[in-house]
Amino acid sequence: MSVYLDHAASSPLRPEARAAWLYAQERVGNASSIHGDGQAARRLLEESRERVAAALDAEPVEVVFTSGGTEAVNLAVAGLWQARAVARGVVVLPDGEHHATIDAVRALPGAVERPVAIDAVGRIDPDAFGAALGDDVAVATALVANNEIGTVNDASRLAAVAGAAGVPLHLDAVAAFGHVPVAYRAWRSDATPGTGLVALSVSAHKVGGPVGVGALVVARSARLEAQLHGGGQQRGLRAGTQDVAGAAAFAVAAELAVAELHAEAARLRTLACELRAAVAAIAPDAVLLGDPDDRVPGNVHLLFPGVRGETLLFLLDVAGVSVSTGSACQAGVAEPSHVVLALGRSDDDARAVLRVTLGRTSSAADVAAFAAALPDALVRARAAASIA
Amino acid sequence: MSVYLDHAASSPLRPEARAAWLYAQERVGNASSIHGDGQAARRLLEESRERVAAALDAEPVEVVFTSGGTEAVNLAVAGLWQARAVARGVVVLPDGEHHATIDAVRALPGAVERPVAIDAVGRIDPDAFGAALGDDVAVATALVANNEIGTVNDASRLAAVAGAAGVPLHLDAVAAFGHVPVAYRAWRSDATPGTGLVALSVSAHKVGGPVGVGALVVARSARLEAQLHGGGQQRGLRAGTQDVAGAAAFAVAAELAVAELHAEAARLRTLACELRAAVAAIAPDAVLLGDPDDRVPGNVHLLFPGVRGETLLFLLDVAGVSVSTGSACQAGVAEPSHVVLALGRSDDDARAVLRVTLGRTSSAADVAAFAAALPDALVRARAAASIA
Repeated sequence: MSVYLDHAASSPLRPEARAAWLYAQERVGNASSIHGDGQAARRLLEESRERVAAALDAEPVEVVFTSGGTEAVNLAVAGLWQARAVARGVVVLPDGEHHATIDAVRALPGAVERPVAIDAVGRIDPDAFGAALGDDVAVATALVANNEIGTVNDASRLAAVAGAAGVPLHLDAVAAFGHVPVAYRAWRSDATPGTGLVALSVSAHKVGGPVGVGALVVARSARLEAQLHGGGQQRGLRAGTQDVAGAAAFAVAAELAVAELHAEAARLRTLACELRAAVAAIAPDAVLLGDPDDRVPGNVHLLFPGVRGETLLFLLDVAGVSVSTGSACQAGVAEPSHVVLALGRSDDDARAVLRVTLGRTSSAADVAAFAAALPDALVRARAAASIA
Repeated sequence: MSVYLDHAASSPLRPEARAAWLYAQERVGNASSIHGDGQAARRLLEESRERVAAALDAEPVEVVFTSGGTEAVNLAVAGLWQARAVARGVVVLPDGEHHATIDAVRALPGAVERPVAIDAVGRIDPDAFGAALGDDVAVATALVANNEIGTVNDASRLAAVAGAAGVPLHLDAVAAFGHVPVAYRAWRSDATPGTGLVALSVSAHKVGGPVGVGALVVARSARLEAQLHGGGQQRGLRAGTQDVAGAAAFAVAAELAVAELHAEAARLRTLACELRAAVAAIAPDAVLLGDPDDRVPGNVHLLFPGVRGETLLFLLDVAGVSVSTGSACQAGVAEPSHVVLALGRSDDDARAVLRVTLGRTSSAADVAAFAAALPDALVRARAAASIA
């Protein structure tokens, strides 16, 4: 078994979520079927929707299950934009967003991107965000927590400025959910219907649920075009036979993640602190990127100047330690991190990063194993860099 | 336990598929991650892709995993149309297609539908289909087997006429796969690249795999626009963290369904024959809809003149027998079946149908239970109809 320090890419399935999935599979029937079997599946589905809603501080009717975070983000961005694009074409897109968002925006024919800079720790300034929200804006989007560097934004203020500007806002909470409080209703506060925070995306496998399941919270007042068409399931917003077992497993994982959030955040913050101290002792020139305090507790995003992150990743992998250089979705693509570049860092720096993400199964032994493997990996990575 | 005769809506998970899902869940890691854990997940994913490809007579590179049949159909219809719509706007859409297809077509801004009639047993005439394939056609689509009435089309000839016309064809094999032979490569034959059969959709839960997993076979030569944008997974045609466990479970189910196809078809044909004989004895006026011979072996689609199918369904449900009136995706919608209407039947007839679908877990005892419950249900349903 490897030392798995890549929880941000995917976190192992929780045993309770596995049990919920298996329980659901023992039942037969399509949740849209009228007969008793179908209705039993439907009850389990709607109970799961209630539990996911509660974990997000949303109403059950607002939860639309999707096949994951990517689909939720695409549905929000394309669906909100298409519903308003006749009059307004602009999408407010901060720097350093996840590629699901960036690519979804770029796939919209006629959409105009309006960037908002992030600061040196990756935070979106709510005032700058608000200043971008003109009358020509169809939709705005922002990360609650950055998936690479872990910086947490002020979601409540971003929602408030969008509400004040009368613009519908989508928040991508995929990297935040289960790690920092996500409170859709509290953040939404009292915006005019259809404006302010109207959509929020999450993914099950980032909180110990199964891969292939996610959700988009959609305000009842939101104008949103469906992207998958067919049977009219889920308020007509997302067609397709509903994955009852996936929803049930997600519900259990979401509930546990939220219940454990504070204790787990404290535990992971301590472990992350130990890991940072170990790195500082081994590599005094290493820099922690992102906000040092206001960040996803298990995220340690490190810049090792003059080293290729990819080389370091490979050497650590050989030593049995699994980490990443950035988003797994972009892994294998030999490009500098667009997030690190957006911090104002150089191209070289944006290739010299390592993302270490601790999670539910991480222990002090994992931190110790990382710290034990790092010195040799660094020596070799520096040697490789000096040759290249 | 109910007597479950609604396999076309959803078939129970095969034990071997459940085992494959659990095996995959014991591994950690995102299949896009570079480290060893990620690469192990990737190997399992690609092995699953190979097995699904083999079950469909396709090449592994042609298999794009989706969140199910609805997403596969939407990706095919929208993706193929968008790639050619600049010059051509027409979609050739036979009558009686699944609502995923119909609604995906109707959601395309600017698309023009060109219907093709089906005959009295629900079959598409390949010559009529070919006659609709003019130069203005961006994409054509057709069911391999009708999901309601079970009629099987001549997929090979439909592919040939599309190839001859130089039109890209999508075949919806969701209701066919696992029940009748599906042979993508053989059907595709030697069409000019980018024309003829270029896309074929299937769903896992119709063959004993999990809900929430499906695939679209996409020819390498096909021009197809992605509908989900993000990490560049799967040839850039379908972004999102890949559901390795779902793919592994699908692969096992698909392989078993194909291996058992001939024996199971013979067994189900016998059971279906017994069920039809029992119905004929109980209700001599009942009519089997769809092609009597060339149909999905487990499908028995019955018209009970003068009765409301929905009433019959409820009464059978009370007696512990689960059947449907049509597509589960449209269940709960009190509308006559558009498929039955397309056969040239009346509005009353289109509301007087019952779809009984046998599958892997069905036995002679299930048929006997249905036959035992039917007389009383029919008496009551007729009484209800005479009052109404």
